[in-house]
Order: sequence, then C-alpha cells, then structure tokens
Amino acid sequence: MGVPKVSVIPLGGLGEIGKNMTAIESQGEILVIDAGVMFPEDEMPGVDLVIPDITYLVERKDRVRGIVLTHGHEDHIGALPYVLPQLPVPVYGTRLTLGLVEAKLEEHGLLSEARLREVRAGESRTIGRFEVEFIHVNHSIADDVALAIHTPAGTILYMTDFKFDQTPIDGKVTDLQKLAELGRKGVLLLMADSTNAERPGYTLSERVVGETLMDVFSRTRGRILVATFASNIHRIQQVVDAAHHHRRKLAVVGRSMVNVVGIATRLGYLNIPDGMLVPVEEIGRYKPHQMTILTTGSQGEPMSALSRMAAQEHRNVSILPGDTVIISANPIPGNERVVGRVIDRLLKLGAEVIHSPFSGIHASGHASQEELKFLLNLVRPKFFVPIHGEYRMLVTHKRLAMAVGIPEENIQLAENGDRLELTPDSLRVAERVPSGQVLVDGLGVGDVGQVVLRDRRVLSQDGIMVVVVTVDKRTGQLVAGPEVVSRGFVYVREAEDLMEEARLQVRRALERRVPDGLTDWQSIKSEVRETLSRFLFERTHRRPMILPIVVEV
Amino acid sequence: MGVPKVSVIPLGGLGEIGKNMTAIESQGEILVIDAGVMFPEDEMPGVDLVIPDITYLVERKDRVRGIVLTHGHEDHIGALPYVLPQLPVPVYGTRLTLGLVEAKLEEHGLLSEARLREVRAGESRTIGRFEVEFIHVNHSIADDVALAIHTPAGTILYMTDFKFDQTPIDGKVTDLQKLAELGRKGVLLLMADSTNAERPGYTLSERVVGETLMDVFSRTRGRILVATFASNIHRIQQVVDAAHHHRRKLAVVGRSMVNVVGIATRLGYLNIPDGMLVPVEEIGRYKPHQMTILTTGSQGEPMSALSRMAAQEHRNVSILPGDTVIISANPIPGNERVVGRVIDRLLKLGAEVIHSPFSGIHASGHASQEELKFLLNLVRPKFFVPIHGEYRMLVTHKRLAMAVGIPEENIQLAENGDRLELTPDSLRVAERVPSGQVLVDGLGVGDVGQVVLRDRRVLSQDGIMVVVVTVDKRTGQLVAGPEVVSRGFVYVREAEDLMEEARLQVRRALERRVPDGLTDWQSIKSEVRETLSRFLFERTHRRPMILPIVVEV
Repeated sequence: MGVPKVSVIPLGGLGEIGKNMTAIESQGEILVIDAGVMFPEDEMPGVDLVIPDITYLVERKDRVRGIVLTHGHEDHIGALPYVLPQLPVPVYGTRLTLGLVEAKLEEHGLLSEARLREVRAGESRTIGRFEVEFIHVNHSIADDVALAIHTPAGTILYMTDFKFDQTPIDGKVTDLQKLAELGRKGVLLLMADSTNAERPGYTLSERVVGETLMDVFSRTRGRILVATFASNIHRIQQVVDAAHHHRRKLAVVGRSMVNVVGIATRLGYLNIPDGMLVPVEEIGRYKPHQMTILTTGSQGEPMSALSRMAAQEHRNVSILPGDTVIISANPIPGNERVVGRVIDRLLKLGAEVIHSPFSGIHASGHASQEELKFLLNLVRPKFFVPIHGEYRMLVTHKRLAMAVGIPEENIQLAENGDRLELTPDSLRVAERVPSGQVLVDGLGVGDVGQVVLRDRRVLSQDGIMVVVVTVDKRTGQLVAGPEVVSRGFVYVREAEDLMEEARLQVRRALERRVPDGLTDWQSIKSEVRETLSRFLFERTHRRPMILPIVVEV
Repeated sequence: MGVPKVSVIPLGGLGEIGKNMTAIESQGEILVIDAGVMFPEDEMPGVDLVIPDITYLVERKDRVRGIVLTHGHEDHIGALPYVLPQLPVPVYGTRLTLGLVEAKLEEHGLLSEARLREVRAGESRTIGRFEVEFIHVNHSIADDVALAIHTPAGTILYMTDFKFDQTPIDGKVTDLQKLAELGRKGVLLLMADSTNAERPGYTLSERVVGETLMDVFSRTRGRILVATFASNIHRIQQVVDAAHHHRRKLAVVGRSMVNVVGIATRLGYLNIPDGMLVPVEEIGRYKPHQMTILTTGSQGEPMSALSRMAAQEHRNVSILPGDTVIISANPIPGNERVVGRVIDRLLKLGAEVIHSPFSGIHASGHASQEELKFLLNLVRPKFFVPIHGEYRMLVTHKRLAMAVGIPEENIQLAENGDRLELTPDSLRVAERVPSGQVLVDGLGVGDVGQVVLRDRRVLSQDGIMVVVVTVDKRTGQLVAGPEVVSRGFVYVREAEDLMEEARLQVRRALERRVPDGLTDWQSIKSEVRETLSRFLFERTHRRPMILPIVVEV
C-alpha cells in the first residue's frame, strides 16, 4: 500500500481540451466520462465528424468499468456509436441524455446490445470501485449533471458544461448545497468548464429569453418563426409557452427538431398543450397571427430548414413579407458569415429578423467569470484543472483561480493525451498516452488521414490535370496521346490553346526520353509532372495537382 | 432641358453593397468612386482576389472622366491594377492614398502610364462636369476623404468608411463644419457607411488605444510584439510613441508592414525618432526590455509573420517565455478560429497575449449608431442610401435614419448593379446594369467561373477517381485496363481491395456493353460514371468526382 494514485486523462485531438472524453484511472480500473464528437475544422474538407482516438482504452478494455455521460449534447454523446462496438461497457446517464442516446444508437442499429443505465441527479452509483455522485447543473440542455468521483486519493469534482442560473425554467437551480457540502468535506481536484472564461460578469438567465420572446410575440401580428438548437428544450418550452399564451399553433420543422421535440415530450421534459401542434403541411390553413414555426438552422447550416426557407427551397414553408424570424442563438465562431447570409436573404424576402446579440433573444449555457470564481470559492479545491475550452480560455480560467487564492503551483493546464497524476498531495503531468482524433467520412472511420486531406486541399485550390500516356509495352513507343484532361483548373472551353500547348509540352518531353526507351515509368512520370508543373505555373501562376497515368498496350 | 437626372450605380458582386466601386453618371459623363477588391468567400477555393465586373464602364469608357479614391484600404484601391489597363483614366486621391497606389501599380509595372492626381482634404476639383469636394474624415487609415459631388440635380454626399473621433491622433477631427455647411445648403442624397450600423453607442476613440498601449508598456519588462493592420498608421504611431517613451527600439517585420511603414514615413504620416529603428536581424543584440517588434498577422493569416512566429517557423523572431504579444485588432468575422489558434500557440510558447475585445487594445474605424444618427441630423439629406455593409446592416441603418425623421419613402436600399435614378424630387431603383464579381486566380482574371469552382468544391469534399479505358479503335475491344487511380478519396495503401473491386465493376460494366460495340464513347463514359458512383457510394457513402478517360489505340 503506497500513496493512493489516480490518473486523469483528457482524450481527444486538437481544439478544446477535456471536452469530448476523459478517462479516470484508479485502483487498476478505468471510468470514462463522455464520448462526444468534435466538429471538423476548415482544413478537413469532406470530413463529417471527428471522434477521439480510443486506442488507449481499447488496449485496456477489460479494466474499463463504464462510460458516464454528463448531458445529451453531440460533443458529449455523439461518438458513442463508434466507441461502443469497440468498448461494449455499460453507459450511465440521466433520463433525457439516454433518450437522445437511444435514438442515436437505434439509427446505427446498436441499441439492442447497448447496456444503458439510467441515473438521476442527486443519486450516487458504484461503478467498479468508483463511487460516483450525479449533481444537477444548469446548461442549455436539460438534465445535465456534474460528477463527484470519490477515489482513495480524494474526490474529483468534474464540472462539465454548466452555468449558475438563479431562475431556471424548470425551477431546478444548480445544486449549490451539494457543491458546498463537497467543498466542506474537501475536494481534491476540481475540473471545470472554461468556455466562457473570457467573458466578464454573469451569464444571462434563460428566463430573460422567455421575457424577450413574450415581448416579441405580444407585438407581432404576422407569422413567427423561431430557429434555435434542437437540444435546447427549455428554450423550446419558452417558445411553446409564448405561442400558447398568444393562442398560436405550433409547427415543428427540421429533422433534428422533430426528433428531439418527440423524445423530450415523451419523456416529460417538454409540455406542449393538446391541440397546439399542427403538421407542417397544414400551416396554410391558419392565419399568420395564429402560427408559430419552430425550426432548425440557427447556425446557418446549408442544408437546414431555415437555410432552405431563406433560399426559397423549402418544400413546406415559404417566407412571406410580414413574417418575423427569431434566431434564438449566437453564431458559433466561424459561422458568422453563413448566418449573416441567411439573415440577408430573409430580409430580402420581406421578413423581419430578430437576431442581434444585444436583443436578449439568446442566453449562453456556460458560466461567465463571476460564476467561475463563485464555483471556485464554493468548492475550495486543493487542485484545479481548467477544461472545456481552447488553450487561451484555460489560461484565463487559471488566472481567475489564482485571483480567488488557488496557488499557481496547484493549477495544472493539460492537453488532450496528457496523463495527469494525482495523489492526495500532488498533481503533475506524467507521460503522454496515445490519443488524437479519428476522422469519419461517410462510412469510413479513420481511413481519411493526412495524405488524403492534403490531396483534397491541393485539389480544392487549383484542381487537377490528368495526363494519360499510352505506350507499346515491347517497344516503349508512344502509341496514343498524351491525353490531357483537367478539372477545377481552368474552364477548358476558353482555354483550349493552353490545354493543347500542355499536350505538346508533354509530348516533347516524352520524345526527348524515347532514345533511352520509355520503360522507366517512375522517372517518366516525374518528368511529365515537372515539365507540366513548370509550364502551367509560368502561364497561370497556379499549381494544379498533376496526375500522370501510363497505360501499356 | 428636362429635369436634371443623375444615376448612382454601386458596382460589384455579392456581399457588401456600394463598397468597392460606385459609378455616378450625370450629363453624359461618368465619375467612378474607388476601385477595390473583395475577399474570396469560403465557396471560392483557390481564388486569390475578387474584383468588380466593370463591363458597364468599359462599354462607356469615353465617358468616364476619372476614378476618385476615398482612402488607401485594399477594398477601395486593390482593383486598380486590373481596372486601369481597361479604363486608363486619371486617378484622384490624397497623398497617402496615392502613395499606397503607387507602390501597388509599380509592382504590376503600371506606374509609368498611370495618371495620378493628388488632392487634399478641403479642396474642390472639377472632374469633367463634376464638381467634387474632398472632406476630411476619421478612419482606421490616415488621409481618408468623404466626397461631396455637386451635380445639376443637387449635391451627393458620399460618406465612405468613417467615424467621428473627437480626439484623433493627428488632431484632425472629421470636418464637422463642412458637413454642417453642406447640410445647411442642402444635400440631395446622402450615402453612408453602414459597417457598424448594428453597434449601439459611439465607437471608441483611437486615443484610448494609445492609453492602453502606454499602460501595457509601463508594466511590461520583457519584449513587446504588436500585431496590427499595416495600414493603420495612427495605431502604428501610437506603438512608436509608447515604445519611444519607454526607451525601446523598434523592429518592423512582415512584408506589408515594412512596405507601409516605409511609405508613411517618407510621406510624413508616421514619425519614427532617429535611431529607434533596428533591423530585424539585429534584435538579438538588445535586452528584452529594450525591444518592440511591430508585425503583421493580426488576422491569423497563415503566411503572416505572427503566424509563422507562433508556429516557430519565423526566420528572425522566436517567441520566448516572458514575451508579451499585443494583438491590436479584432478578428474580422470568419477569422476567429485562425486567430484563436495563433493565440493558443503563443501562449503555449510561454508568451503573454493581450487580445480581448474588452481590453481597449483596439478601436474600430467605423461609426456606430449614435454617430450615424449624428451624421444624419447634421446633414439632413433629402434622400438616403445606406451603403458599405451587408444587407442586414443596411436595413438597420435605414431604421436609424427613420428614427431621426427621414421619411421611409426617401430611403432606398440598393444592391450592387442597381441603377439608382436621382432627380431633385425623386429617388428610385431603375433597371439593373451588368455587374458582378470577377475572380482572380494567379495570373488568370475571370477564367475561374462557376464550373471550375463547383469542380473544386466537389474535389475538396471526396476527391477524384480517374478511370482510364483503352480500346482498339477498329474492333472496339478493351485492350488495356481499366486503370483506376484516386486522389483525396481513400488512402489507397489501405484500400487496395476496394480499388481492385472498383476496377472489376468497371470491367464488368464494359463487358456488358461489348456486344453493342465499344464505340459510343459518351454513353460508355456515363455508364462507367454511374456504375462506379453507385458502387463507391454503397461501400463508402462518399461521392468522389469520377473522371472516365477513353483512349483509342
């Protein structure tokens, strides 16, 4: 019996740290927190999803006791269909979280084998040798839980995405008493959400959005369309309430919105009065002042319902002058331009659009600086590891912790893949473990790597030029071609001369080689590539990919 | 003599309206305002620049009397090298603006033919039959001028990018007296910058940034690096002043920064004390507290000096623990993620980074809502056209104008290409004129169109599969192949089976066609395309571009 030791390992790739998956290792057992997706970066064209590399866990799968989910957002549950087949362990989560997980696993044909274990906020569960308490916290999705994980070394408090909402819609404030109690008993390590660590003050209460919605509904005579995140059940409830109060019907549009509204209603998280829901095909039967349409597309996603409405391409909904469109969300960084374009189009169709960050029409789900300091003072942890944010946010969160008196040497910034070694008296970064990101493209998981991505990037910049050279396999003589075909390089009909010259350049280069015999294909291909590359750059200042193909007949 | 009529035509493509180029037509003559570039959108991979389509002007080139530049930003002068060869007319601008234009034309070998005419704020010029007054305004570049264009129909006041800075660095406040005088005499049409129309309140004075800089310099012992826009001469002056006050030397890094600092110093817009400038190769000779480095890269541009420093790839500058990096700019929408990544890397190298929008380290160059209303009240125009902004900003600006009493029917929202017809009593959108955007890629101007862009987008998503089929031209028999080569689709070494199966699929499809004779190439190509497309989608859920090439021997 030495000093009890616990390892904490944030898994995943670049970007946010400790967000999508974290492993806790103690007494030879492993507990996994969350299994979420990351969203592809601009430099990953064609990639659908990014999931954490779980090699480390798969190699130790006999010791993994379970996956505990904190809440139902994609970046916390979306990787389950890829993780469970390799790591078939029990999955713990609250009712709504598991409701969303079920739908997801069903879609992948994985539901029947899955072992889902429902937990409630306020409960404790023994999972292997881990004692886990589930603590109610507020967030932009219902049924979010923080985790207190009791280990022989001490208690780890894992504060996933959260905020302190003093007036939440369901009346259930973040369990401050429990946090205080844990703090009193002693928290060895606090890990906490840093998403809004750069934002001063307090985050707006969700209830403020309800008041704004009520205002807008009161003064609006035409149809009202509301776009928001499908998973934001409390937001949706407030839209339902405002619409109901103004005797409007409600139509729900967009696959994920229909899906989540169905699940949340069935599980009792969303209350839609009888007779209020109207099929989208029938919205034409109602007068404008009787209609509310709830839709996806608040991030300007090109295939979403709202984007299609704005482009006048939606099957059931046409935007009409006099419509009011409420975009109840802030653009996620990187989406500003597409969201802006959707708004421009809606305005040109004659709609009123309510969207500004100053309008009180959206509230973040993440704690701001004052709340983060409040948490630190309430819990008074010995050690602190900021998580859920990009590096600069963790740095800012660290400064907040220092401002409330946590000694700098007790705060550790980690990167995904770092094994943090925790004892009752120490916290340090030990070695790195295998980790990273696995790209999902269509049905392929992990078959798109750096080579494929680099080719896609090159192709997207200047296109491709394919050169087919057909030679006699005995004599090495050119028997046809060279054929030159391009895509994404120049508009060929207007560049026939250039293409013809390119052909001549290749032919001349090949003829120079004939004396040596056209049989060393590798060097012939490089010759074609170099000749053509030089010629095209000179003439166009572009560098298309050049793909020589030699056919022997 | 009928009623005098003037046409106002914003030229350019999608995006900001009336920003890059505007034509004013009166008494059979045309005056062009600005000739700027737009920046390529995400959907334009490989495109370097976007310039306005000037067909309308070229077709009337005998009537074009000149191009008047308002200021030296790229989105106002950057298209000149493409416009002047087709439209060799005199170019009017202030001293600094022309200084920047000269460097640009020199680079393109166009300086000797250009007819540049220097003007000063406060002056008037007769250009053809247009009487043009140049009015000093504040902006994030020095020497910016608004234009009062006097026509027989009345005065058009063109308020390009501007703000009201009550305490500008050079002491020259926007010429409020002149604006008031024009208002008193009567402005028929006001066109004004809408960039910050959605922002409440007043825009921060540039001087506040100087105070923040001075604070940071006072408390910093290590090296200080400042990244900002090269063209923001007043910002640079404030960096110079703060550095000089703290007895630091200054090194300038980054091509455009070196370029602009040179021009601005030579023309007297920037004052760098003797002996203060140090070549970047010699920064190692100074102690950290003696050194300031001024650099480009405030937008996270991948090839910029700051990005290369952050990636530890800069030839002369290595980031060291203890360095303080000031990013004196806000990310332009769409750049948040790349800027964030640069900050993360700098932090990991041990630098302190000052960047937050709450830090007072940057001030916008555009007027906010209170300033825009102030302008409207000062000028009291009969008609109003909001410009320089995306559609939603113009809509908000229109509301501001209505709030200060401009009747709705006197406000016109236009799109690029709309010919606005103005008389002393009316303003309306007449027909549309040829307009749009021309893409510049390498040396090619306008040769990248929708077909090429669509191909690039497809290529970037799932790559390409090339199928070469070699047939005997007499018998139609397959004599070699099919050869199947892919790029950007799957990593071939790990997908050999898939590629082999693809080959078999094509071969089988072709063999089915042999009885009919393999001579109808078009239908054979479609057959290959369809067979392969179906097969690959089934197996991978991806849709690479499929490029069949038939070679006859």
